[in-house]
Amino acid sequence: MPQATDAYVQAHQDRFLDELKEFLRIPSISVAPEHRADIERAAAFTAESLKAAGLENVDIIPTGRHPLVYAEWLHAPGRPTVLCYGHYDVQPPDPLDQWESPPFEPTVRNGNLYARGAADDKGQFFMHIKAVETLRAIHGRLPVNVRFLIEGEEEVGSLSVRRYIAANAQQLKADVALVSDTPLYADGIPTLCIGLRGLVYLEVEAIGPRRDLHSGLFGGVAPNPVFALMEMLAKAKNGDGSIRIPGIYEGVEAPAPEEKASWDRLPFCEQRFLKEEVGSFGLAGEPGYSVLERLWARPTFEVHGLAGGFAGQGAKTVIPSKATAKVSLRLVPRQDPQQIISAFRQFIAEHTPEGIHTEVRVLISSPATMVNPDHPAIRVASQAFHDVFGQPAVFIRSGGSIPIVGDVSSHLGIPTVLMGFGLPDDGLHSPNEKYRIENFFNGIRTVTRFLERYGESV
Amino acid sequence: MPQATDAYVQAHQDRFLDELKEFLRIPSISVAPEHRADIERAAAFTAESLKAAGLENVDIIPTGRHPLVYAEWLHAPGRPTVLCYGHYDVQPPDPLDQWESPPFEPTVRNGNLYARGAADDKGQFFMHIKAVETLRAIHGRLPVNVRFLIEGEEEVGSLSVRRYIAANAQQLKADVALVSDTPLYADGIPTLCIGLRGLVYLEVEAIGPRRDLHSGLFGGVAPNPVFALMEMLAKAKNGDGSIRIPGIYEGVEAPAPEEKASWDRLPFCEQRFLKEEVGSFGLAGEPGYSVLERLWARPTFEVHGLAGGFAGQGAKTVIPSKATAKVSLRLVPRQDPQQIISAFRQFIAEHTPEGIHTEVRVLISSPATMVNPDHPAIRVASQAFHDVFGQPAVFIRSGGSIPIVGDVSSHLGIPTVLMGFGLPDDGLHSPNEKYRIENFFNGIRTVTRFLERYGESV
Repeated sequence: MPQATDAYVQAHQDRFLDELKEFLRIPSISVAPEHRADIERAAAFTAESLKAAGLENVDIIPTGRHPLVYAEWLHAPGRPTVLCYGHYDVQPPDPLDQWESPPFEPTVRNGNLYARGAADDKGQFFMHIKAVETLRAIHGRLPVNVRFLIEGEEEVGSLSVRRYIAANAQQLKADVALVSDTPLYADGIPTLCIGLRGLVYLEVEAIGPRRDLHSGLFGGVAPNPVFALMEMLAKAKNGDGSIRIPGIYEGVEAPAPEEKASWDRLPFCEQRFLKEEVGSFGLAGEPGYSVLERLWARPTFEVHGLAGGFAGQGAKTVIPSKATAKVSLRLVPRQDPQQIISAFRQFIAEHTPEGIHTEVRVLISSPATMVNPDHPAIRVASQAFHDVFGQPAVFIRSGGSIPIVGDVSSHLGIPTVLMGFGLPDDGLHSPNEKYRIENFFNGIRTVTRFLERYGESV
Repeated sequence: MPQATDAYVQAHQDRFLDELKEFLRIPSISVAPEHRADIERAAAFTAESLKAAGLENVDIIPTGRHPLVYAEWLHAPGRPTVLCYGHYDVQPPDPLDQWESPPFEPTVRNGNLYARGAADDKGQFFMHIKAVETLRAIHGRLPVNVRFLIEGEEEVGSLSVRRYIAANAQQLKADVALVSDTPLYADGIPTLCIGLRGLVYLEVEAIGPRRDLHSGLFGGVAPNPVFALMEMLAKAKNGDGSIRIPGIYEGVEAPAPEEKASWDRLPFCEQRFLKEEVGSFGLAGEPGYSVLERLWARPTFEVHGLAGGFAGQGAKTVIPSKATAKVSLRLVPRQDPQQIISAFRQFIAEHTPEGIHTEVRVLISSPATMVNPDHPAIRVASQAFHDVFGQPAVFIRSGGSIPIVGDVSSHLGIPTVLMGFGLPDDGLHSPNEKYRIENFFNGIRTVTRFLERYGESV
């Protein structure tokens, strides 16, 4: 009956899009305490959408921070169980002045829906809900058992959902997890992501004078925490972009020759990537590795920003009392986050200059994950893509991190199908985030086929 | 008649203090455009105070930015003319949460007046006005001719007053300038400052990707402007604190042996300085130079802060499109600001990493200045100090910068008497800025004596 489900999606597409827009209007920025009420609204909206799609035991689960939303439909005995994951929280929209339309007023331009969260991840996990609705509308039932676990802290480290999975592994029993939070390799190319980098996100605080000091009256003798951070963090990389923290490359696993060869077959143009996706004066990175290798199979070290001192308009001659930098490392298979954190702590301790005291705080820690492309669920996912896109899926990795994928693997012992429909230029975490509307509907259709085919496969 | 003027100060001290408090309640923060009205109010308050003290031709002079206030009294033919300078603008009060009482609600504690601007510089130039009032009240006239030129941009580079002096050198004709914007060497030690460091304040912008990027999806290939700034700026200093920008020490003049010997005689305890004034875990700075040499006779390089990327609460994994750092160099005698700026520009150009574009903008540029301690006005100032404090003044330098002192020297051809009454721990530019109330009154008395003695000296 694929035609019937496709027809349902077609017939209801205006409503599906309107519902998504309503969802996107909620500024559920997880990092910002002042958006707490919006977080609650987004969780409630998610729960209502799950109920409306016919899911059962819908529950808003309080956590130490932002609530989880759980739902299930378990009336297909003997059929596998799919655990659908997504996140209703979004990144902050800053810098606001660079948005062409307001971040929380979803706006259609050139076939795209512009809004914070359109692709990351509201617009994507909403497809799962609409696939369930479609299947129940046409068949009166679902071809597989499903559980939904939607969280509100993905953009701030997924702490609560990770704890919940660790503590409730039995109740979450499933055969595979389904996550739509990754992009297509390129528009029109069905894509399965089989590898994600891990993430260690840290805060480094440097403490110097007891109070902010005048740089004229104390410059030359007072230790400067802003400069100290720059000095220490600059040392973490060599001039060629490689990381200088001792031990950081220990155990790093190179992609298998076949996987590397498949990357070489992908349509990739470095000049176009530079010009259209990055838009800088040139690319950076380790010598001896291709762009895709650097993105998917090499660890990185980044500094995201620095607080402290004076950075406003004009001139203030201050040596601040303290300063804090946000840094992160992306990890690849076989790198242990705990070892990386220890190595970084030791590096900072060794390079802390005279007169400065440093503290390193861990905000996020999750390992890289890989999925076996020969797993039955991955093969079914590939067929579902073929049904809708008319061509076989390519297997890629992503440089990004979805902490829950590692937890699902270690606590539930199941792989994750990373079936995403975003595009590389969707602007996740950037101004003018968008989601291609056609991909939203293709995504609903593909997820529908996946659930149907996966139910038939056993 | 010193006794008579002292008695006048004594009799009116409550009113003097109340007037100063009223002045300090105006948050005339020159860097903040939203305080424009407060700047106007502070200029008007200054003008009214000058009028009330009996000065003539009081004028609020509009400039491209914040107004100047001019006043004069020129009825002492054959006597010298003193140009009194001060600034009614103040530094921003951040970080606000570290103030024990609100920065713009002057509060008396332990004999100190706490408020932003108490010592820098409202409380100090206000002494000049009160000295004039006192002399006129007692003698009906002044012992010298005086001009007042008060500006509102000292904390943002003094651009307007510097232009005004350059363009109006004839009208500002005077024999000596008097500035109270420096501290006593220590409480109770009368101090004349005969050297100031210069200042070059710069903004370095690094531009990378066209838009903010997700550090997972682009980390490893996209150039990161935050890291680029850290990398470049960290290279500007060696690990031992010396500056690595080529040519930066060219022409740097060491203090004469006698001057250096006089610094060694000052009561200075490095441990106490570290503990009470800096309050850090240790001091920083160039090896081979004493603390006072590093503060007074050596150039510095400082980074004050960095804007761009994410530095808020929590974790945001962004590679920002651009970032800007605020940096400054303090200069010593014989260093040419233009040469320093060129050297810095070249340094940044040479160290700009692949994929990044950099821009350097100059916000402030002024050379170091020295005053000959044998100048008659300095000798008279020393005697005035002796009259009030009962001991001879020490001659020191300051690590800070007062750009106008250089302009007064080059355009008007006159030296400046730097007769300040602050204390090293007054917290200029820091939370809980204060001014010792006793020093406010001693300052009025000393300035009064200086004007009397200087009038008699010719």
